[in-house]
Amino acid sequence: MNTKDNKKNAISPSREENYSEWYQQVLKAADLAEHAPVRGCMVIKPWGYAIWENMQKILDTTFKKLGHQNAYFPLFIPLKFLEKEAEHVEGFAKECAIVTHHRLEKGKDGKLIPAGPLEEPLVVRPTSETIIGEMFSKWITSYRDLPLKINQWANVVRWEMRTRLFLRTTEFLWQEGHTAHATKEEAQEETLRMLRVYERFAWDILAIPVVVGEKTPQERFPGAVSTFTVEAMMQDRKALQGGTSHFLGQNFARSSEIKFRDAAGEEQFAWTTSWGSTTRMIGSLVMTHSDDDGLVLPPRIAPLHLVIIPVVHKEESRVMVLEYCHKLAADLREISYHKQEISVLVDERDMRGGDKSWSWIKKGVPLRMEIGPRDIEQNRLGLAFRTKGHKDLIMLKREELLLQIGDLLDAVQTHLLEKALSFRRNHTHKIDNKEAFYAFFTPKNKENPEIHGGFALCHWSGDPEIEEKVKADLGVTIRCIPLDEQEEEGVCVMTGKKSKRRVIYAKSY
Amino acid sequence: MNTKDNKKNAISPSREENYSEWYQQVLKAADLAEHAPVRGCMVIKPWGYAIWENMQKILDTTFKKLGHQNAYFPLFIPLKFLEKEAEHVEGFAKECAIVTHHRLEKGKDGKLIPAGPLEEPLVVRPTSETIIGEMFSKWITSYRDLPLKINQWANVVRWEMRTRLFLRTTEFLWQEGHTAHATKEEAQEETLRMLRVYERFAWDILAIPVVVGEKTPQERFPGAVSTFTVEAMMQDRKALQGGTSHFLGQNFARSSEIKFRDAAGEEQFAWTTSWGSTTRMIGSLVMTHSDDDGLVLPPRIAPLHLVIIPVVHKEESRVMVLEYCHKLAADLREISYHKQEISVLVDERDMRGGDKSWSWIKKGVPLRMEIGPRDIEQNRLGLAFRTKGHKDLIMLKREELLLQIGDLLDAVQTHLLEKALSFRRNHTHKIDNKEAFYAFFTPKNKENPEIHGGFALCHWSGDPEIEEKVKADLGVTIRCIPLDEQEEEGVCVMTGKKSKRRVIYAKSY
Repeated sequence: MNTKDNKKNAISPSREENYSEWYQQVLKAADLAEHAPVRGCMVIKPWGYAIWENMQKILDTTFKKLGHQNAYFPLFIPLKFLEKEAEHVEGFAKECAIVTHHRLEKGKDGKLIPAGPLEEPLVVRPTSETIIGEMFSKWITSYRDLPLKINQWANVVRWEMRTRLFLRTTEFLWQEGHTAHATKEEAQEETLRMLRVYERFAWDILAIPVVVGEKTPQERFPGAVSTFTVEAMMQDRKALQGGTSHFLGQNFARSSEIKFRDAAGEEQFAWTTSWGSTTRMIGSLVMTHSDDDGLVLPPRIAPLHLVIIPVVHKEESRVMVLEYCHKLAADLREISYHKQEISVLVDERDMRGGDKSWSWIKKGVPLRMEIGPRDIEQNRLGLAFRTKGHKDLIMLKREELLLQIGDLLDAVQTHLLEKALSFRRNHTHKIDNKEAFYAFFTPKNKENPEIHGGFALCHWSGDPEIEEKVKADLGVTIRCIPLDEQEEEGVCVMTGKKSKRRVIYAKSY
Repeated sequence: MNTKDNKKNAISPSREENYSEWYQQVLKAADLAEHAPVRGCMVIKPWGYAIWENMQKILDTTFKKLGHQNAYFPLFIPLKFLEKEAEHVEGFAKECAIVTHHRLEKGKDGKLIPAGPLEEPLVVRPTSETIIGEMFSKWITSYRDLPLKINQWANVVRWEMRTRLFLRTTEFLWQEGHTAHATKEEAQEETLRMLRVYERFAWDILAIPVVVGEKTPQERFPGAVSTFTVEAMMQDRKALQGGTSHFLGQNFARSSEIKFRDAAGEEQFAWTTSWGSTTRMIGSLVMTHSDDDGLVLPPRIAPLHLVIIPVVHKEESRVMVLEYCHKLAADLREISYHKQEISVLVDERDMRGGDKSWSWIKKGVPLRMEIGPRDIEQNRLGLAFRTKGHKDLIMLKREELLLQIGDLLDAVQTHLLEKALSFRRNHTHKIDNKEAFYAFFTPKNKENPEIHGGFALCHWSGDPEIEEKVKADLGVTIRCIPLDEQEEEGVCVMTGKKSKRRVIYAKSY
């Protein structure tokens, strides 16, 4: 392997050559996850899981500040609960793992077979509205019990036929918030508040400039009155849905009988919401920032901010160099960066310095530093950035590094956000006629058929038939009706019917 | 409800009257958990989950300091993996949830039925040795890859026929550590190191004076070479097993083919360990410290250290009192207690002060304080302790409280540990003849048949037949062979055969 300057990259194929294979290779090179020997499931390896733990920590702190409490509900959902909400069960029936037996027995050929059939099959939770609704119906009796704001960190299972690490797997990890309120307005506010939490988290922490919007009725969560989403653009210009937030109206309250007496003593159904974000965000992070040398991590989510590589050519300088490195690491750890300590590793592995550097480049660590006796003597430390050429060093005195480390990390963070934002802007176009629309979504390069136009901002009159046609013709869907765009008179790009606003059409994961 | 001084308690029945019903009522009064409408499963409510989060945080920090990394493995285990280790599958076959289908379909009567049968049934993980072993076999090729030290926080399922909240449920939450080493000695060291982590955690954080020891071959983890345990004594004098740590020898390495090349280039099987602790610890915590007024929490695990109840009799003093309380809470939160901030809540609920106090007593919060205009004026704050009479106040100036809060909490912590330790000592007896042994485990009081002698320290010659007889006759098992007791010549209490050391016999959960 070699440096960027020599035009040879660590990841093959490149993004241009084969985007989806590039993604797999980045995951592999960074050691984030791999396919499990269980159909459609993944093993999240330590580096991937450390990113997930950071996501959890930051989101969890925000949820708690907003008054949500964590709890835990059963993995198994009796079929009769799932059936209560007709649209809901319809939406999940095709992709459920079903538990039907509760022990194993030796069959005639001596092989183990399922035994102890259950009277009622249990569904491994694809989401928990129905079981949590059942509990809410017991816990809520009066308006004094409201709002009830619960969050759960858990694994869920959806039997996906085609799976991709982090993006679509049979089992994945997530958080699901579930709240109940006395009024419609309050539940709607909560829905949007949590949507904005996902938006801020994506922009500020993941450096992913998501668009927030509402899903069309076609794309709603099964059983919801309205579904909101944050949508990001990947480097192949496809959309990836991040956190979603659902206003459930009184649908689940009716099916689960979540009722309360209001201040006047009248019995009413509660208004509920649910909102979730998943390990999919790791896939989004990978595809937003990584390059042809591997993973690139924004500092605010990186498990490690800086790797120090001691350079020892002569045995007699070993102790001195190592001591210096460890002391520097200890001093850096005393510095607080966005309420966390700066995370530093001194890489003492028995391995060539160049190989060490490359291993951390591929893992996306924002900053690297090789330190040898001369650097120490001259108090000139060379800081390398994951986001610059691998041999472009910034020279700093020790005391400057300690003083500036937070700003340097923030500069990387800002750079990544701006880069992603400008990428999204460059590939987002207002399109007002059908031919241009079809051309936009038709790949130019047969060698790399995944690369197409990006996000098309088009007028849409609200016809679900248009969504179906566009999906059938181009594999394109309406990702969302953006919340923060101005209303604007126009005509539907497909039908010419009057329309009040533009929506985002895109191919998506 | 009334105060202790009036001899009326919040929990009915009392421990003396009906211990197991008392346990249920404590859980209910503290709002820790409840039975789910799914057979054998529980819902962990926010107060119970907050205790679990504290347990996780403290254990996780320790694991990471010792070099373990978190990762995540699939929920489902293909039957063929489980079958690889004969003893292991034997041990879990009778209590497995089995997934056999992957979707739901409308049957003839319009009802949903399982469809899409799987070619190979999947077992919902009862533990993850086999699936993690499979991954380890891919990740490990050289001695340079060792030791490999992984931990997972996850849910597991064991189909228990008789369930009790926290103590025995079909699904529970836990952590499971899995490590692989190049030598037997290193794996054995790791097994004992992690056992000692559980021991220190129980003593120092949970204030539970556990005994550490080895399990007899009968009681070993299925597939282990040796199993170690921490055993606590509950207030009904029964034993409750806490964390366990297993030396797996090369058993799982052989069945999963975890092999490595040593420094000399020879291929060898690795030596593995596993160790786990579960939400059961919450049950242990409840039964060790709680009293007839409800839960009692040791400060180092309590989600809340101090509740401040503002007392406002006249509307004109409301703002002043609330401001004072919130300022005091903010100042207390600045204080660090065992690397956490002091956790304080100002209880502003619209409820009588007495009811507020009782709600926190039942939830086990270590300290309470009612603050009204006179207390503020005189700078005399009355601090109530969960572990003292509910009206016994310690009077402190504001500045004294801020100065002493850490010491006051530590005093509570120490008091609880000492109380539990003296309870255990009072109910642990050396017994050297059979009649005394049978009498010790025969309840004296027919009204309360659960109360018996406690822990019997007896000689045992090593015969498994004795274990079986004692279990059949008395429902008593050998809990462990204590590690920290001196060897001592003697004779087996049942057979008169020669023995080198005493073991702990007890009834258990």
